[in-house]
Amino acid sequence: MKWFAIILLTLISSVAIAQDPKSEQLIKHRRAAFTLMSSYFSRILNVVDGEVDYDKSSVVQNAKNVEMLSKLPWIGFAPGTEFGDTRAKPEIWFEEDEFEKLAVDMQNKVRALRVTAETGDAGQVKVAFITARKSCGACHDRFRKKE
Amino acid sequence: MKWFAIILLTLISSVAIAQDPKSEQLIKHRRAAFTLMSSYFSRILNVVDGEVDYDKSSVVQNAKNVEMLSKLPWIGFAPGTEFGDTRAKPEIWFEEDEFEKLAVDMQNKVRALRVTAETGDAGQVKVAFITARKSCGACHDRFRKKE
Repeated sequence: MKWFAIILLTLISSVAIAQDPKSEQLIKHRRAAFTLMSSYFSRILNVVDGEVDYDKSSVVQNAKNVEMLSKLPWIGFAPGTEFGDTRAKPEIWFEEDEFEKLAVDMQNKVRALRVTAETGDAGQVKVAFITARKSCGACHDRFRKKE
Repeated sequence: MKWFAIILLTLISSVAIAQDPKSEQLIKHRRAAFTLMSSYFSRILNVVDGEVDYDKSSVVQNAKNVEMLSKLPWIGFAPGTEFGDTRAKPEIWFEEDEFEKLAVDMQNKVRALRVTAETGDAGQVKVAFITARKSCGACHDRFRKKE
């Protein structure tokens, strides 16, 4: 029954449908949160990759922004937002426990990155960054459609 | 000379141009920040309009998010981001002092809204909300293209 529902929702989501403006807003909300998170996360990546010199206060500020933004996307995954301008897989709404587990894990890892940015050195930031990035990827692999 | 530059930039911006990916990212960054700000601001509007019951802790949380997000768009207005997928008028880069004045004013007004949300009642929130909304509008009127 669950698989039937997922297939049905996938079929529906591949058809252009006039969408409730509220759902459209919620999809924009969550996408904007991820866009901004990724923007600040990339700034830390540039340091980790050696493209930008390590500057503690700037890494701390970027990590604080990532942490704060990591709390915002979730209200955007309300029922009714399964289809529209989104790469979210319908599985999100059928495997809610697993989705939430990965969402919470990511928030924990980016909090750890912020703490490390405040207390650790460049090497430790790199380790915490890679751990945080893996937690993003784990959710993308499972719940985000390929482009 | 200034007006010639503005006209030139306006002409350039109306032509499709292959854009530097970094500038594109910055435009996405600032748009995402405004989208999220507007999302939380609208939640307070629903309370001010009486569509949603006044709940202090929820208004405070939304106002905190607006305040925090109000600090994020500005790095997105870097040179090179004058044209692309944006409604920003080229005047922003020629009247930087005025743009900054309006940006700072808005940040002050949304901070005042957060303080009022924490300390005041529903009526006071309404007044602070309207003041904050005017400060958004002042900048949009001057520096944002009509849709």
